[in-house]
Amino acid sequence: MDDLSVFTGNANPQLAIAICQHLHIPPGDADVFQFSNENIFVKINENVRGHDVFVIQPFSAPVNRSIMELLIMIDALKRASAARITAVIPYYAYGRTDKKDQPRVPITARLIADCITVAGAHRVLTMDMHAGQIQGFFNIPVDELTAQIIQARYFVQKGLGDLTVVSADEGFAKKARKLADRLNAPLAIIAKRRLGNDGQTEATGPMKEIVITDSIPLSEHKRLPNIKVLSVAELFAGAISRIHDGRSVTELFG
Amino acid sequence: MDDLSVFTGNANPQLAIAICQHLHIPPGDADVFQFSNENIFVKINENVRGHDVFVIQPFSAPVNRSIMELLIMIDALKRASAARITAVIPYYAYGRTDKKDQPRVPITARLIADCITVAGAHRVLTMDMHAGQIQGFFNIPVDELTAQIIQARYFVQKGLGDLTVVSADEGFAKKARKLADRLNAPLAIIAKRRLGNDGQTEATGPMKEIVITDSIPLSEHKRLPNIKVLSVAELFAGAISRIHDGRSVTELFG
Amino acid sequence: MDDLSVFTGNANPQLAIAICQHLHIPPGDADVFQFSNENIFVKINENVRGHDVFVIQPFSAPVNRSIMELLIMIDALKRASAARITAVIPYYAYGRTDKKDQPRVPITARLIADCITVAGAHRVLTMDMHAGQIQGFFNIPVDELTAQIIQARYFVQKGLGDLTVVSADEGFAKKARKLADRLNAPLAIIAKRRLGNDGQTEATGPMKEIVITDSIPLSEHKRLPNIKVLSVAELFAGAISRIHDGRSVTELFG
Amino acid sequence: MDDLSVFTGNANPQLAIAICQHLHIPPGDADVFQFSNENIFVKINENVRGHDVFVIQPFSAPVNRSIMELLIMIDALKRASAARITAVIPYYAYGRTDKKDQPRVPITARLIADCITVAGAHRVLTMDMHAGQIQGFFNIPVDELTAQIIQARYFVQKGLGDLTVVSADEGFAKKARKLADRLNAPLAIIAKRRLGNDGQTEATGPMKEIVITDSIPLSEHKRLPNIKVLSVAELFAGAISRIHDGRSVTELFG
Amino acid sequence: MDDLSVFTGNANPQLAIAICQHLHIPPGDADVFQFSNENIFVKINENVRGHDVFVIQPFSAPVNRSIMELLIMIDALKRASAARITAVIPYYAYGRTDKKDQPRVPITARLIADCITVAGAHRVLTMDMHAGQIQGFFNIPVDELTAQIIQARYFVQKGLGDLTVVSADEGFAKKARKLADRLNAPLAIIAKRRLGNDGQTEATGPMKEIVITDSIPLSEHKRLPNIKVLSVAELFAGAISRIHDGRSVTELFG
Amino acid sequence: MDDLSVFTGNANPQLAIAICQHLHIPPGDADVFQFSNENIFVKINENVRGHDVFVIQPFSAPVNRSIMELLIMIDALKRASAARITAVIPYYAYGRTDKKDQPRVPITARLIADCITVAGAHRVLTMDMHAGQIQGFFNIPVDELTAQIIQARYFVQKGLGDLTVVSADEGFAKKARKLADRLNAPLAIIAKRRLGNDGQTEATGPMKEIVITDSIPLSEHKRLPNIKVLSVAELFAGAISRIHDGRSVTELFG
Repeated sequence: MDDLSVFTGNANPQLAIAICQHLHIPPGDADVFQFSNENIFVKINENVRGHDVFVIQPFSAPVNRSIMELLIMIDALKRASAARITAVIPYYAYGRTDKKDQPRVPITARLIADCITVAGAHRVLTMDMHAGQIQGFFNIPVDELTAQIIQARYFVQKGLGDLTVVSADEGFAKKARKLADRLNAPLAIIAKRRLGNDGQTEATGPMKEIVITDSIPLSEHKRLPNIKVLSVAELFAGAISRIHDGRSVTELFG
Repeated sequence: MDDLSVFTGNANPQLAIAICQHLHIPPGDADVFQFSNENIFVKINENVRGHDVFVIQPFSAPVNRSIMELLIMIDALKRASAARITAVIPYYAYGRTDKKDQPRVPITARLIADCITVAGAHRVLTMDMHAGQIQGFFNIPVDELTAQIIQARYFVQKGLGDLTVVSADEGFAKKARKLADRLNAPLAIIAKRRLGNDGQTEATGPMKEIVITDSIPLSEHKRLPNIKVLSVAELFAGAISRIHDGRSVTELFG
Repeated sequence: MDDLSVFTGNANPQLAIAICQHLHIPPGDADVFQFSNENIFVKINENVRGHDVFVIQPFSAPVNRSIMELLIMIDALKRASAARITAVIPYYAYGRTDKKDQPRVPITARLIADCITVAGAHRVLTMDMHAGQIQGFFNIPVDELTAQIIQARYFVQKGLGDLTVVSADEGFAKKARKLADRLNAPLAIIAKRRLGNDGQTEATGPMKEIVITDSIPLSEHKRLPNIKVLSVAELFAGAISRIHDGRSVTELFG
Repeated sequence: MDDLSVFTGNANPQLAIAICQHLHIPPGDADVFQFSNENIFVKINENVRGHDVFVIQPFSAPVNRSIMELLIMIDALKRASAARITAVIPYYAYGRTDKKDQPRVPITARLIADCITVAGAHRVLTMDMHAGQIQGFFNIPVDELTAQIIQARYFVQKGLGDLTVVSADEGFAKKARKLADRLNAPLAIIAKRRLGNDGQTEATGPMKEIVITDSIPLSEHKRLPNIKVLSVAELFAGAISRIHDGRSVTELFG
Repeated sequence: MDDLSVFTGNANPQLAIAICQHLHIPPGDADVFQFSNENIFVKINENVRGHDVFVIQPFSAPVNRSIMELLIMIDALKRASAARITAVIPYYAYGRTDKKDQPRVPITARLIADCITVAGAHRVLTMDMHAGQIQGFFNIPVDELTAQIIQARYFVQKGLGDLTVVSADEGFAKKARKLADRLNAPLAIIAKRRLGNDGQTEATGPMKEIVITDSIPLSEHKRLPNIKVLSVAELFAGAISRIHDGRSVTELFG
Repeated sequence: MDDLSVFTGNANPQLAIAICQHLHIPPGDADVFQFSNENIFVKINENVRGHDVFVIQPFSAPVNRSIMELLIMIDALKRASAARITAVIPYYAYGRTDKKDQPRVPITARLIADCITVAGAHRVLTMDMHAGQIQGFFNIPVDELTAQIIQARYFVQKGLGDLTVVSADEGFAKKARKLADRLNAPLAIIAKRRLGNDGQTEATGPMKEIVITDSIPLSEHKRLPNIKVLSVAELFAGAISRIHDGRSVTELFG
């Protein structure tokens, strides 16, 4: 398992390239495209026998195609005799469907975990999942990074004086607590409710700045002046490097 | 397992309704839709505890969404304690990706079989798969119907005098042989080759009539005067009824 | 699967007996005890071939023995050819160990789910788990009841005038929200933190009344005047009866 | 996994010895025999802890014993802590039972794939299987070699002038197409049918030369003057060497 | 699961027919034979959808073919949608290979248990296995009958006066103890050793009568005057009937 | 897998320390304790990514807690990305519950094997199990040591002249035979029976010396003058060292 290989699907090739640059290796050579009948086709164009392979594929739009692409890439790599396959999923969609909060609904986050496992992945590397429990949906090791360090560093650099962290959802109260602790700031929780299953929430007033990451590509019409994008490429490159070398990933957050 | 329930996703609701009419039961009540973030949501709105449930979902466009919808519906039905779940897939996409005819490609037809099984389906009911071997990708029972009976009956009714069955692909030679036998007609095989992985084949001359089935919906721009659509609804209703009652499905083809 | 059988281990036989009384059936005849070498022994003393069996065993003290007892009973029932085995776990211990909130810790709630499944259970019936996501740790159907209905009814009967629901932990904010909604009362959230791994939290002032359930036996020294115990026996009996008959469990909460 | 070990059962020890000669290693020391009660016994006589083990065993006559021998050898090697076990199956019997072309028949080729996997093999190395889809019956990596290269080289060396490739079965049309392409020759397809389940086909006229390989031993009475046997030992040795070293097997066919 | 069906392979059709006579049902109609290439072929000739199927197949000579036949029949019945498949194995070969009493040997009795399970059997019905622990090699329910009742009844009927049970192997000492208890006779144990792996034991002097059962067919040359064959057909028929009806099998031994 | 790490739970830390001393490595740093609610908590305090980890945990009193501790430690190590986890179980409890010698009892020794496997162990190292067949309850490799060598060496050193080995149970007759062979002494077998399920056996007369090992800690009240404790630490250290290096464990007994 000497050789490190990084492949990417079509979900966020920019991020994959940036990660590879931090790792000082070229991205793996593969064809990943759709036939005219929408069937995704994958062909790995270089030998991966015995390699330690990482597939970078956040579940970005089109979400279901991104998921299928990841599964198919894993299958191809498994059958091509990769020694170890790590599914790198900077954004794990379907995170909210992680419990039966109504009768007769699915737990899709678990279903996808099972599909990833049955496809042949040996490990998962992800970031800021909707709930920590989703790690337990897997029986293979999961390393979960957090962008909070990057965000906290950014806010500290901005030198904002009087700061309050506001969680807009009770479900995120614990995560907001952690960010507040990192920033040494107080925490407020807004009680917001999803009404029905249509995904609508009440409108929110205008924001001065919205700080997001490049874990998924930003669609053209969302590239507004008040959007600040922080890159997670270095963070993921560091984790991949440490996983490959058998060094602690936790130390990244030290 | 007294109660028979039939549910449908968004892949071909017209076919599902037609099947239910043949079965003299209403389609099961369920919400199956996408949130604005493209996450598919499923909610079964009626009790299915101990029911014998059939989910009708061909892998029609958008293909990957249709597949994910089926998996998520199965997960919801499993967790809602259905006694038996049969995935009814009149058209099984990715059938051509059923072997490694090049190095380092996936066998997606097997991957999807595993996903269907891990989601919780107990059986599969499908039709005219790309290769008979795909049945062996499953370890759960598969009933595979064929539309050839319907097609053969149609050609016989047309009273075509001097008939030759032509297989446009060596891979389909065996199936064409069966149709030729049903029609008591000679068989010709055209040697056609897929060039590269782009799915392109050489153009074919104009057709007098193209006979297809309603296993997947026909897109608007393909509804041409020379397209004849035969319905498989009665065939599937017959199979579902026999599977539910424990009677032979083979007799349908007697 | 005509015959309904209910067995109990040593975790809470009183509750099991109360459930059986509501179901108008005697508890199943079984020996469940420890040899002098602490090895748990189980012997089912009546025929269960083809029966629909429920094993009532909350994970009460001694917790690890209660868990092992449940697993061993399931194994004995599986090998004795029970048609369906439902693990009835009114209190699911290790619920807090449901995520890796520190490096190199286990997710024991998932581990136990896997052990219950590998032992041979077909379903789980439980109540008020630490997090809804724990349902997703299982791939077998889980019915999760809630004692909130019983608690809400009790508080309504008390006719408390000016009521505020207080959640003492951000993690429980969502559950507290639900109770507040049931009682039509406002919600407050106290920010409390676990310090280190020793399980200690800050002391709380004296309570007027603490309302708990009989899901686990109350130890002698905790039977204080201000403890009010509400029984969940009728609730569980209702769920078992509905599961056995294939009727909706959700309607119980209608 | 530094150490490469090659073991053989009784199916084709000559081939195994030839492969080992090409690899410049002695065959592994093992007892593989039947007791007088027909129970196969296996004893590996040298340490294989952490070794990369290849077991050479075509499914030659007696077929069912050859299969069982392979499974038992894999079990012994797994329990002896081999790091990786590759089942090398130059001839995979039961390849025709790879689909349900009649009602209520088995798919034995899949069944055997499952048995090989459950016994503990990590990979399969085989040659010219009856259908490419059989690779999809496995979820472990399969490398499938082809003797067509050896055959094509032989025919080229013979300097046959005017050559036509004839496929005696529609099912083999695609394979025949590949050989024809290698030889730059035209292709003809004979329509032949299996009549019933007795394995009989119509007789064929006298052959000038029949070219086969040594993948299975040739029984005494079939050693006729017009039989030409080409050895696949070098081909298999090359593949084993490349699998062991993590180099591309595809390049063998370059 | 109303319908009871009994099928048989070629291992002991006489026993299967006798069992069916006791059950007052005809044996199921199936073709089970070998092609000239030794590939076993199975075709179930009647509908078994939803049936409760028992396959009677002791592991008699040719042992490995008998095992493969059972596995293939189970696969065919599973794919033909039998509701429940019970492998009825009156004689379980490879029972002695149930532990690693030497380094680097297999545990074939476990391997076969896994193959039976992966083929699709839901239960096993067997008799007098080499060691009780072999039941634990299965995770599906196993009912193990004993011919000791039949043997004890026969010895009692013979009215032998002064009786001593002798166990010719320490490993059988516990079973001999049980027979001795049934006959109210003393027990003696002979210390005999297997020397090496060649299955040879020391010769034994001439016997007056050897009492065996018809669990496997008696080969022609072993039909000696001093061989007494007791039938287990009624015993197995009783067990099958009880398993089918969900009644206790233990009571058979009451 | 260069790095060897040894961790211990609370079952026998003295033995673990002694083993580490023989291996010349410090025990791994981990917290393994119970919260006040009896939930076991495990935290591995050092990086184990890619390590070859051994967890030393005999199933000593409190037995069920010892078992759960082992399972939880394995889960934590698996999720912390250990390359290989070997469960070192010097004493495997529940060994007597290895068969169904009565109707409707469990086979707990198999159940625990499944739990160890599902938790994530890759191998087991144990000693003198109740029956050799228990190895077959696992599908992962098991190395079983025996203390008989240590015991035999001790008896030889004592220079006892006229020696007879007595087996107090028919079930142990084979093991006693082996010890007798090692000591070149005759063997006697006492017929002893367990009466009912209460674990009571008839009393035995006063012993001159009872020779046991330190595989489980000796409780205070059992430290009597006639108890001789032999250490198995060196034996286990030797086996761990050989497993880690890929050398034969069998040679230890040479």
